[in-house]
Amino acid sequence: MKIQVGIIGYGNIGRGVELALLQNGDMELAGIFTRRDPATITPLTPGVKVYSIADAEQFQGAIDVMILCGGSATDLPEQGPYFAKMFNTIDSFDTHARIPEYYAAMHEAALDAEHVSIISVGWDPGLFSLTRAYADAILPEGKVYTFWGKGVSQGHSDAIRRVPGVKNAIQYTIPVAEAVEEVRSGIQPDLTTRQKHLRECFVVAEDGADLAAIESAIVSMPNYFSDYDTTVHFISEEELKTNHSAMAHGGFVIRTGKTGLEQQHNHVIEFSLKLDSNPEFTANVLVAYARAAVRLSDNGDFGAKSVLDIPPALLSPKSGEALRKELL
Amino acid sequence: MKIQVGIIGYGNIGRGVELALLQNGDMELAGIFTRRDPATITPLTPGVKVYSIADAEQFQGAIDVMILCGGSATDLPEQGPYFAKMFNTIDSFDTHARIPEYYAAMHEAALDAEHVSIISVGWDPGLFSLTRAYADAILPEGKVYTFWGKGVSQGHSDAIRRVPGVKNAIQYTIPVAEAVEEVRSGIQPDLTTRQKHLRECFVVAEDGADLAAIESAIVSMPNYFSDYDTTVHFISEEELKTNHSAMAHGGFVIRTGKTGLEQQHNHVIEFSLKLDSNPEFTANVLVAYARAAVRLSDNGDFGAKSVLDIPPALLSPKSGEALRKELL
Repeated sequence: MKIQVGIIGYGNIGRGVELALLQNGDMELAGIFTRRDPATITPLTPGVKVYSIADAEQFQGAIDVMILCGGSATDLPEQGPYFAKMFNTIDSFDTHARIPEYYAAMHEAALDAEHVSIISVGWDPGLFSLTRAYADAILPEGKVYTFWGKGVSQGHSDAIRRVPGVKNAIQYTIPVAEAVEEVRSGIQPDLTTRQKHLRECFVVAEDGADLAAIESAIVSMPNYFSDYDTTVHFISEEELKTNHSAMAHGGFVIRTGKTGLEQQHNHVIEFSLKLDSNPEFTANVLVAYARAAVRLSDNGDFGAKSVLDIPPALLSPKSGEALRKELL
Repeated sequence: MKIQVGIIGYGNIGRGVELALLQNGDMELAGIFTRRDPATITPLTPGVKVYSIADAEQFQGAIDVMILCGGSATDLPEQGPYFAKMFNTIDSFDTHARIPEYYAAMHEAALDAEHVSIISVGWDPGLFSLTRAYADAILPEGKVYTFWGKGVSQGHSDAIRRVPGVKNAIQYTIPVAEAVEEVRSGIQPDLTTRQKHLRECFVVAEDGADLAAIESAIVSMPNYFSDYDTTVHFISEEELKTNHSAMAHGGFVIRTGKTGLEQQHNHVIEFSLKLDSNPEFTANVLVAYARAAVRLSDNGDFGAKSVLDIPPALLSPKSGEALRKELL
C-alpha cells in the first residue's frame, strides 16, 4: 500500500508537490484540497481528485499525511493547528521570528491528537538549517553566514506592489560576490546587511505615476530596502512577464572555524543550492519529509518536529542496508 | 557532570580528539588509552591521564563514550566489537566496501551489551554520506558525484611506499576542475575514473634505485594508479618533510536533478569542505557524534548506527528551543 498524500492549497508549491509525488513510487496523491471551487481547478496530472478544503476532515484515516502548501503570513498559523488535529502534516512555515510560537501551537495540537507535524520544511528554513546546525556542532569555534540568491523574494516584491503608483513588481535578492569570497577565506568578517546582499527591483508603474516618488518610496522603505543598496528599473508589464517570471533561486550557507593547539587550522564547510524552480524544489523537500512523518507516526513518535529532529535515513525510500551500502 | 570521553589510540586523530574536546565545554577527556608504553606519551594538554589500552576495561561505568581512533584496515575490525561490549563507541571506519560487515559485527556487540556504537563517522564516510543521502531523497531523478581533494591519500601513499626502491612517498588526489564544472552544469555526465581525479606522487627513492622502474611500477599499479593519469616526482627526504607534511584535504559532493512536468527544471545541491587539517576536522566530527551517542544511550536506543540514523539536533549542546530559535 502506497503512502497516501493530500495537498492542502493548490498554488505554486501545491503544484510542485503534485509533480514531486510522480518521482516517488512509494507515494500516491490522494487528493488536492482547495478553498476555490474544485470545479475550477485543473490538476497538472490526469485523474487527480480535487475537493473542497471543507471536506478534508472526511479523509481522516484514509490520508497518511497532509502537505500544507499555504503561506506563512495568514494561512499556516490557522491551518497548521487545525489540520494537525486530524492528520500528520508537513509545512514550510518560514517566518523565522515566529517559529517558536508556531512550533508550540503545532506541538500541542499534534501531541494531543497523536499525529506528527514536521514544520518549517524546505530549503531555508530546511536544508540550510541542517547545514547551520551540523556545522555549528562540528566547528564550535567558528562563524556561520547565509547568503540568498540570486532569486525573487516574494515578500519584497509584495512590499513594492503596495507602493502607490506601482502596478506590478519583482524584486531580486543578490548576494555580494566579494562578501562570499571574504567569508570563504576564513577571516570571519563582520558584515553589515548592506555588505551581504543587493536588492534589484523591476517595477511596472501605473500610467502617469510619479516615477521619482516611487523609486524614493522603495529605496527608503524601512526593514525591506533602506538597509540595502537598492536599484530600481521601470519596465513594461510585457517585459516583466517575458523576462521576470522564472522562479529560479538559490544561496549558500558557509561556516568557517578553527582547530589546533594554537587555532592555526582553518576549515570551510559550504552548502549551496542552485535552483531553476524554487517552488518545485521546495516541494521535493516537503515530499521527502512527508515520508519521514509517516514513519515517525507509525513508530508512535508524535508531536511537532523540525528537520533538526529527523534522522536522515527516514527521508529515503531505501532500506537501512541499502543506504549503508550505497550512500554511506 | 560533564560527558566523560575516552580516546583509544593516540595518533593524528587521537590528538585531534584531545583538542576538539577543549572546544566543547560539556565534555571532558577522561583518559587516553594506548598500545604503547603510557610513560612514553606526552599529551598535548597538561593534566591528561594516559593508560595502557589493556586497562580500559576498568573504566566501564566511568567513561560515557570511547572514541576509537585506530585505522580501518586492522585496528577497528578487532577493537570495534571488543569495546562496543564495554562502552558506547564512535569510530571512523572508512573501508566503504566492508561497512555492511563491520556494521553487523558492531550491531550485535552493542545491542547485546546495551550500548550505542556510531560507526563510520568523519567526513567521508560521514558528512559527505549525509549530503548524498539527503540529496538522493530530495532529487530522486538525479545523479550524485563525489570528488576528493586536493589532499593526501594515506592508502595510496602507503601503496607507493611498498614499491621496491621507495624510501618514502606522499600521494595527492586532485579533482579534475573541468569535470567538477561539467557536473555543476547539470548535464549529468558519465565520467570515468580517469576523468574525475588526477594522482600526483612525490617519491623519495633509495640511493641508487632505478627511478624509471619505480615510476613504471607506480603508474601501472592496478586499482591504485592504473586507471588514473598519474604523475611522479622524485624529491629529497628533506623536501618531502618541508613541503609535503601538511594534512590539508577537502572535496565536493554534488547532486544534480530535474523536476517539472517535462523535467525542464534543473537543480544543483552542492556540499564542499576545505580543510587545513584532515585529522583535526575528522576529530571534531567524532566528538559531536560522541555527544549524540551518549544521548541515544540515555534514551535506551541501543545498537550500531551510522550518521544517517542520527537526528542532527543530538549533535549540538544547544537545547531544542535554542536550535529552533537560532539555527532553524
